[in-house]
Amino acid sequence: MSETMLQFRSLITAESGLEMSLAEVPVPVAGDGEILVRIEAAPINPSDIGLLCGAADMTGAVFGGTASHPVVTAPVPPAGLRAMAGRMGQSMPCGNEGAGTVVAAGAGAEALLGRKVAIIGGATYAGYRAVRASDALLLPEGATAEQGASSFVNPLTALGFVETMRLDGHSAIIHTAAASNLGQMLVRICAADKVPLVNIVRSAQQAALLHGLGATHVIDMTAPDFVAQLADACEKTGATLAFDAIGGGTQAGQILTAMEIAIGRRPGGYSRYGSEVHKQLYVYGGLDMAPTVMTRGFGMAWGMGGWLLFPFLKRLGAEGAERLKARVAAELTTTFASHYSARVSLAEMLSEDAVKGWYRRATGTKYLVVPD
Amino acid sequence: MSETMLQFRSLITAESGLEMSLAEVPVPVAGDGEILVRIEAAPINPSDIGLLCGAADMTGAVFGGTASHPVVTAPVPPAGLRAMAGRMGQSMPCGNEGAGTVVAAGAGAEALLGRKVAIIGGATYAGYRAVRASDALLLPEGATAEQGASSFVNPLTALGFVETMRLDGHSAIIHTAAASNLGQMLVRICAADKVPLVNIVRSAQQAALLHGLGATHVIDMTAPDFVAQLADACEKTGATLAFDAIGGGTQAGQILTAMEIAIGRRPGGYSRYGSEVHKQLYVYGGLDMAPTVMTRGFGMAWGMGGWLLFPFLKRLGAEGAERLKARVAAELTTTFASHYSARVSLAEMLSEDAVKGWYRRATGTKYLVVPD
Repeated sequence: MSETMLQFRSLITAESGLEMSLAEVPVPVAGDGEILVRIEAAPINPSDIGLLCGAADMTGAVFGGTASHPVVTAPVPPAGLRAMAGRMGQSMPCGNEGAGTVVAAGAGAEALLGRKVAIIGGATYAGYRAVRASDALLLPEGATAEQGASSFVNPLTALGFVETMRLDGHSAIIHTAAASNLGQMLVRICAADKVPLVNIVRSAQQAALLHGLGATHVIDMTAPDFVAQLADACEKTGATLAFDAIGGGTQAGQILTAMEIAIGRRPGGYSRYGSEVHKQLYVYGGLDMAPTVMTRGFGMAWGMGGWLLFPFLKRLGAEGAERLKARVAAELTTTFASHYSARVSLAEMLSEDAVKGWYRRATGTKYLVVPD
Repeated sequence: MSETMLQFRSLITAESGLEMSLAEVPVPVAGDGEILVRIEAAPINPSDIGLLCGAADMTGAVFGGTASHPVVTAPVPPAGLRAMAGRMGQSMPCGNEGAGTVVAAGAGAEALLGRKVAIIGGATYAGYRAVRASDALLLPEGATAEQGASSFVNPLTALGFVETMRLDGHSAIIHTAAASNLGQMLVRICAADKVPLVNIVRSAQQAALLHGLGATHVIDMTAPDFVAQLADACEKTGATLAFDAIGGGTQAGQILTAMEIAIGRRPGGYSRYGSEVHKQLYVYGGLDMAPTVMTRGFGMAWGMGGWLLFPFLKRLGAEGAERLKARVAAELTTTFASHYSARVSLAEMLSEDAVKGWYRRATGTKYLVVPD
C-alpha cells in the first residue's frame, strides 16, 4: 500500500471563486477502535453537490489541469460568496458516503479486517478513509462495494420519511421527484409497510418505471390537470404529509392545495378559515433552486419546512437509528438497491462530461465514483 | 324591547355571487345559563373580512338597496366559487366579537343582568346576541362597550404570540404590520414581559408611532437595506420566531434569511446545509393575498406555517386560556386599548365609503360597528 492517496477537494476563495481538484495526501492511519477503508464505490448524491460546487455558477466552469490531475474552476457570484463565508478559503474534502474493504484496523476493530463495509461521514471521494468501527455498516456476506455504496443517505432518508409520518401522526405520504433512487426505495418500503404513497414524477417514462415497481398512485406533474389528479389521490389515500425534493416553483403550494381540496370533500371539512386538518410539506432537497411560490389557498392549518437526515436521526434516538440501519443491511440488495448510469474514477469525475452530468441532478443519471 | 332586530348577512350563490345585506330576524332568547347581550360595539377585524366578502372581487361591487336596508353585491370569480363550496347558498351572520349590555338572562346567569360584557363566537353584527354566560368576559366597572369591543381577537392573539414563543423554545419575536392595534398591544406586552421584539412597519409614520410607544427595534420594510437592518436586529435580539400578518410577497422569506444571517455571525454558526438553529415564521393573516415568494437561502432548519387563535387556545389548554382572559380584563384600558377611526351603524357599514374603507384593512383605519 502506498503512503499517499488522491483526495477530492473543493475550495472557494473570494479571489478565484470555486476550484475543484485532486490533492495528494497521506493515507490516514486507523487509531484505536478505528478501521481504514479502501474506498471502492461512492455515489454522487444531490446532497453532495452543495459542498462540491457551493454557490458557483457552473455555466461558467473552466476545465483545466492534466488528465491525472484535472482542475475545474467556476466563478462565484457576489451574493453566493456571502452565503459561503463559513467555508471560505478552506480546502474541503467531499463525499458523504461510500463503501469498500477494510485494509487496516486499530485495537479492538480487528474483526472487520478484510470485510466489506459502508461508511458515512464525509471525505469518501478519496482512495482511503479511516472511521470509527462502530459507525460502519458491515455489508452482508457476498455484497459488493457498489451494492453497499449508497447504504446511508437514500435508505435512511426514505425510512425517515415513513418514521416521520408515524411520529407526526399522518397516515400516508406524497413524494416528489419520485422516480429517483430514493423514490424507488420509498415505493418498496411503503408497499412492504402498507403505507399509502402518492408518487409525483415529471414524465410518462418515469411514471411507467414506478408502475413497473408496483406503485399504485403515480401522477405526472406536467399533466394539465395535475392538481385535480393529485386531489383525487389525496382523497383516496388521506395524505396530509409530503416530502419534496424540488423546493423551487409552484408545486409545493399546489400539493398543499390538493390536500385541502381533498379534505374539503370530507363531511364537515369546511370552516371559514379553511379546514382544521394540519397539512405538512417538508422540503428535503433543492433540485430547483428557484424561489418557492405559494398561493395560500389551503386555509391556515398548514406547515412547510426543511427536513434533513441528521437532525431527524437525532429526533428518532440512537435505538431507532440502529433499527433503521439493521433493516438497510438486511434488505440491501432488494428494497435498497440503487442504480448508477455512470462509473467514474476520481480524475474522470472532473471531466467536462462528468461534471455536466452529475451537476444536472437528473433522475436516472446517477454517478458512482470508483476511486481505484 | 322589540321582538325583531337587524342582523348582518353574507350570502354567496353560484348565480349571483356575493350579496351582503341586513336581515330582520327574531331577537334570540336567553336559555338556561345564557345571557342576551345588546350589542353596542363590534370591531371589523381583518379576520372578519374572509366571512364578510369571501372570495368576491370587490372592485366589481355594486351598492344598492335603501338607506335603511342597503344591499351590496359583488361578483365571485370561478376559482373563488370552488373555494367557497362549503358556505354556498347559506346566509351567514358575521362579526367575531363585540361588547354590550346584558338585557336578559336565563336561569343561573341572573347575576350578569345590567352588566357590560365582551363576547366572542360570531353574529355580533346584529342588535342582540345570546351566548353562554361562561363564555362572556365581564368588563371592569366603568369600562365602556367600545373599550371592551376588541377584548378577544387582538388581545388573545398578541398574548398567544408570546405564549407560543415560550412553548416553542424561542426567546424573541419579529412582528410584521406592527403598527396595527394588535401590534401596539404586542409592544406593550413585550415591554412588560421583557421579551425582545422586532417591529416591521411599512412607513416612517408607523415607525414614529411605535417609537412613541417605547418600541426599541422598529424597521421600515420599504428601506433599501431592509434585510441588513433586520439581520442586525436579529443579532441583537436573538430572534428566531416571526409572526407575519401579511403572507404575500417576499418579506416572509426575507425574515427567515435575516435570521439565518444573524445566526451565521455566531461562533460555529456555519454548516454546509446552513445553520442548525430552527427558524420559524407563522403566517397569521393575509393582508397581502398575493403568492408567498421565498428564496430559500436560509439553510434547512426552518419552518413556515399558519397560526390561528382557536387551535392555539386548544393547545394552551383551558387553564392557560383563562389566565390570558384574566389579564385582558385587568389591563383592558391600558395594554389592550384599541383605536378606531370610524364608527358605523349596521346600515352605514354597507355604504360605499365604509365598505371601501374596511375592505382595505389598512393599518390605522379600523372600523367599529355600533348597531344602535
